Amino acid sequence: MAAEPTAQTAPEAPATAGEWHLAARPQGWPVPADFALVEAPVRTPGPGEILVRNTYLSVDPYMRGRMNDVKSYIPPFRLGEVMDGGAVGHVVASGAEGFAPGDAVVHGLGWREYATLPAGHAVKVPEIEGVSLSAYVGVLGMPGLTAYAGLLAVGGLKEGDRVFVSGAAGAVGSIVGQIARLKGASLVVGSAGSAEKVERLTAEYGFDAAFNYKDGPVRDQLAKAAPEGIDLYFDNVGGDHLEAAIGALDVHGRAVLCGAIAQYNDTTPPPGPRNLALAIGKRLRLEGLLVSDHDALRPRFVEELGGWLKSGELRFEETVVDGFENAPQAFLGLLRGGNTGKMVVRLDG
Amino acid sequence: MAAEPTAQTAPEAPATAGEWHLAARPQGWPVPADFALVEAPVRTPGPGEILVRNTYLSVDPYMRGRMNDVKSYIPPFRLGEVMDGGAVGHVVASGAEGFAPGDAVVHGLGWREYATLPAGHAVKVPEIEGVSLSAYVGVLGMPGLTAYAGLLAVGGLKEGDRVFVSGAAGAVGSIVGQIARLKGASLVVGSAGSAEKVERLTAEYGFDAAFNYKDGPVRDQLAKAAPEGIDLYFDNVGGDHLEAAIGALDVHGRAVLCGAIAQYNDTTPPPGPRNLALAIGKRLRLEGLLVSDHDALRPRFVEELGGWLKSGELRFEETVVDGFENAPQAFLGLLRGGNTGKMVVRLDG
Repeated sequence: MAAEPTAQTAPEAPATAGEWHLAARPQGWPVPADFALVEAPVRTPGPGEILVRNTYLSVDPYMRGRMNDVKSYIPPFRLGEVMDGGAVGHVVASGAEGFAPGDAVVHGLGWREYATLPAGHAVKVPEIEGVSLSAYVGVLGMPGLTAYAGLLAVGGLKEGDRVFVSGAAGAVGSIVGQIARLKGASLVVGSAGSAEKVERLTAEYGFDAAFNYKDGPVRDQLAKAAPEGIDLYFDNVGGDHLEAAIGALDVHGRAVLCGAIAQYNDTTPPPGPRNLALAIGKRLRLEGLLVSDHDALRPRFVEELGGWLKSGELRFEETVVDGFENAPQAFLGLLRGGNTGKMVVRLDG
Repeated sequence: MAAEPTAQTAPEAPATAGEWHLAARPQGWPVPADFALVEAPVRTPGPGEILVRNTYLSVDPYMRGRMNDVKSYIPPFRLGEVMDGGAVGHVVASGAEGFAPGDAVVHGLGWREYATLPAGHAVKVPEIEGVSLSAYVGVLGMPGLTAYAGLLAVGGLKEGDRVFVSGAAGAVGSIVGQIARLKGASLVVGSAGSAEKVERLTAEYGFDAAFNYKDGPVRDQLAKAAPEGIDLYFDNVGGDHLEAAIGALDVHGRAVLCGAIAQYNDTTPPPGPRNLALAIGKRLRLEGLLVSDHDALRPRFVEELGGWLKSGELRFEETVVDGFENAPQAFLGLLRGGNTGKMVVRLDG
């Protein structure tokens, strides 16, 4: 057996590098002063560890929840410490067998330029020609698996289903609509927050109908787009969207509760759907989704989505914000819907 | 083969008998003037029909919904016509093979003293010593199957589950709590609307804990009764109860949405649960229940509940209102929680 390699020196790594810390817990909408850019030592990897130079950082809606000091499915960020998150990058030094400088990896220590971590916490990923490494925090990563597992495992998507997805131009929503179409949905409707996004849903992603939720009541616009009702609702938004969907769902309809971005920055809880009692007579099923429950689906997911990406049947779009220093702006922009597709931060090359 | 018997005359039946008609559609709480007692001809059964003298009429919360002129899973009652509903009685004349005078039957033409109907719409039931015929509109009928299917088929009750049921002293709730206990729940908590009912839940039905929802916020009382949380909530009430249960449900918890009696008489929709977004992180499943979806469970249900009734492990209680003329009062009393167990109207013998 080969001996455990000793840590290599990291000639390419600087002595110190940037990290984004949580400086204050936001009340309502986060502001730039809630984030602090800190220069910290870059630690040489010990045995079993790797040092990664991050190439892309992921910013995601769920991070807003982690800024609050509340018990949830994932511990809150700690004040004065780095905000973790998804990232992809390249190994620059390795003390771990099987990992060598130059290897591309995806891992969970985002919001920093360099990360030293146990190799077991990183996954080596192949570089695919024509596909940005950032796909591994997007269509081939957490958002893609969220869409896939939500539709299939939680939502029980069936051929012929009429599907509605909110936040449809986002990282998850845009993949939800496309998977639904590719899996034989008879109608795919999406909502988004600008005319440009709405146009993209039908023109680029193959949605049958789409509307701008700012143009009028969701209920009315959904009734127009799906006059016969819907069978499956994928909720990224909560609020009015969920209420409208409960009204539109047909008997034995299903709602996959994935996100509620409409209310992440509310300081008082918004009213819930006033029509939830309709779930009784219509035997609706509403079910929460966390991607972490569905790791067993990953091989099937990678194979199926990888195939659709290669064949060009699945489009994957990103909004790329350049520069590590702009990570908070990217995140704040995401919360306000400034992205189409996956929002990522690209670190200077 | 025997020839189809011709209709027998019905010497025991009067020429006319009483029927309760829907006289007006209530706005909010129904009032006695919404019901009209009408004397109508008793029709002699034709070929394939039976004439039944009703013994017990069922009044049930779902009937409130049928008084409204809205599309639902069951058509609304029609103005100026009889209000249908569950009933048990004895055949007094038969034009149908296999049905003879004296047979006990359960059927759907309640709110009247005599019913003439196709024999195929009635089910012959055995008279069990010591068990009132009214059990067939209660523990061995629709409410019992609702409890059984809701816990097992929709709620996926597992041994060790901590179960909370609202409206726990009612026809469905009292059976839910007992089935949960008999099926190995590790904790059974119920809520009801009077100290007397609460006492009965623990003393008679074997609930581990119970509280009067009028004594304080449901959330606080539930937290005290189930400090470690719950796995399954059976909702007969909606409103505050559902919101409190969503808060108390543990990861992968389930809520069976069976009724929302708290809001049946509201003229404007009440706010929905403000904490529904918790369903995401906790991966809760909320699902509507209609007993009519679960007819396939009936044989297992009758066998299992029949056994528990005979062995005395399952208690079945009724609130009996005497006299056909008091049917509306029985129904109004039910809506205000005036019953413990199943509410039935007994017709004069």
